[in-house]
Amino acid sequence: MPQPTYLTGDRAGIEAFLDRFDTFLFDCDGVLWSGDHLFPRVPETIDMLRKKGKQLVFVTNNSTKSRADYKKKFDKVGITATEEEVFGSSYSAAVYIARIMKLQPPKNKVFVLGETGIEQELKAENVPYIGGTDADLRRDVTDDDFKRIADGSLLDKDVAVVLTGLDFHPSYLKYALGFAYIRNGAKFLATNIDSTLPNAGSLFPGAGATSAPLVTASGQEPLALGKPSQAMMDAVEGKFKFDRKRACMVGDRLNTDIQFGIEGGLGGTLAVLTGVSQKEQFLAEGAEVVPSAYVDQLGDLVG
Amino acid sequence: MPQPTYLTGDRAGIEAFLDRFDTFLFDCDGVLWSGDHLFPRVPETIDMLRKKGKQLVFVTNNSTKSRADYKKKFDKVGITATEEEVFGSSYSAAVYIARIMKLQPPKNKVFVLGETGIEQELKAENVPYIGGTDADLRRDVTDDDFKRIADGSLLDKDVAVVLTGLDFHPSYLKYALGFAYIRNGAKFLATNIDSTLPNAGSLFPGAGATSAPLVTASGQEPLALGKPSQAMMDAVEGKFKFDRKRACMVGDRLNTDIQFGIEGGLGGTLAVLTGVSQKEQFLAEGAEVVPSAYVDQLGDLVG
Repeated sequence: MPQPTYLTGDRAGIEAFLDRFDTFLFDCDGVLWSGDHLFPRVPETIDMLRKKGKQLVFVTNNSTKSRADYKKKFDKVGITATEEEVFGSSYSAAVYIARIMKLQPPKNKVFVLGETGIEQELKAENVPYIGGTDADLRRDVTDDDFKRIADGSLLDKDVAVVLTGLDFHPSYLKYALGFAYIRNGAKFLATNIDSTLPNAGSLFPGAGATSAPLVTASGQEPLALGKPSQAMMDAVEGKFKFDRKRACMVGDRLNTDIQFGIEGGLGGTLAVLTGVSQKEQFLAEGAEVVPSAYVDQLGDLVG
Repeated sequence: MPQPTYLTGDRAGIEAFLDRFDTFLFDCDGVLWSGDHLFPRVPETIDMLRKKGKQLVFVTNNSTKSRADYKKKFDKVGITATEEEVFGSSYSAAVYIARIMKLQPPKNKVFVLGETGIEQELKAENVPYIGGTDADLRRDVTDDDFKRIADGSLLDKDVAVVLTGLDFHPSYLKYALGFAYIRNGAKFLATNIDSTLPNAGSLFPGAGATSAPLVTASGQEPLALGKPSQAMMDAVEGKFKFDRKRACMVGDRLNTDIQFGIEGGLGGTLAVLTGVSQKEQFLAEGAEVVPSAYVDQLGDLVG
């Protein structure tokens, strides 16, 4: 495996690298910002790429936000971007359900284990759903719930899909319902299965962690529609129409972002060191996932 | 692997089988009862074994109940048993922490993800704990929580163990705290890791499911102190002092109860068909876990 090119401070190297691509796919958390902290010179970097006529797509596994929520976040931190340029794992899952699965009513409902981002994207695709942010499902499980899940009377017979994402409000009742639907034959999907969530400079349980009870109970792995799933790459390419050989994936996680770009046959991948993965991981001998190039931080492309 | 003997209706076979043992280890859920439903002739079977002078031990993976809670349940359903005869996975974990780990204060606290059964048994062994049924940890996670977990100010620096069991009140905050303690070096223990919980004639997420977020986030498996862990068998033998060759494990689950008895080198195992496993699983060619004998239900031992 060739060693990645270190571009920080190498003006000529940066220009040559950028010239190889017409399209840049960006991860967001850990690349543009960490939580509420915007990394240095990120707006300038995005503006520079736009001036060069590059196509930009923001590809994020964060399922708690919709594309509209992302637009608000871009505006707030001062990055120029449109809602149309955002492709989140919730949107990816909603598009997969609506346009690939094409479920016929009445058995076309989705039981959601996750936050409002998923609900908004399902709504935008006209997919009916239950669960999600429904506050009633956060209550304590009762003996009656056990009985009514067992006999089916608490279950909605129109549920055909269980869709999990990062859930900040897990409950035993939600897990029991999700497990029952999967046992009854519902298709098990996940917006993404990141094991951890970077936040406040540390790591917290990610979408793969909050959906793990369903994996353990059912013995089934979900079809994940976020990075590095190529279902997401196909959907991104289908929507944005670009030449994969002239596209570059920019991200902080080797096993999601960089792998996503490599498996997708993109012309290149660029790792930034402001997020989860460390350079020691891809510079080590025998490293499994190695980017084409890396910078200390995204802003080094203009700085 | 020899085929198991089918004992239901075989009076002479039953007598010969019982004569081979001085000690019977019983699983409870799925063997004596299912939830609130007592299986037929169970009290008579227990009385018959007592009259024959057998030593009885009730070995359960249910961590939500303490031994005292079990005694109440035995009394309620009319089975003659003492608190001393009960050996639960919460008790097993408490004994492991108190007598094997022998943590020195002040760094000897246990962060509990589970119910009151665990707390009661830790208390009985004088092990300090936090978490568990603390209602404050069921609240929504806040931005401040993320920051204070990341900077350590929300963490108790005396926590040396994270102990998980079946938790009917999971929350993101609990998982985030448990994950942080494990990342900080706390030993990761589980009362048991059953993937499912039989109830109301169906299956629900078990202790292995509700603790799965910590496994996924941390990439670590807990040391499980319930069946089929031989740490539990050693603890049971240490307390009850019996000849393993003259002991029989009675249970409904092949991969916990029966495997527990086989790996423990017991003289025999008896499967009952009133719980999770089906006879097709151990009668199938190439079955991995095969009991010595089986009955349709425990009460068949008295006819």
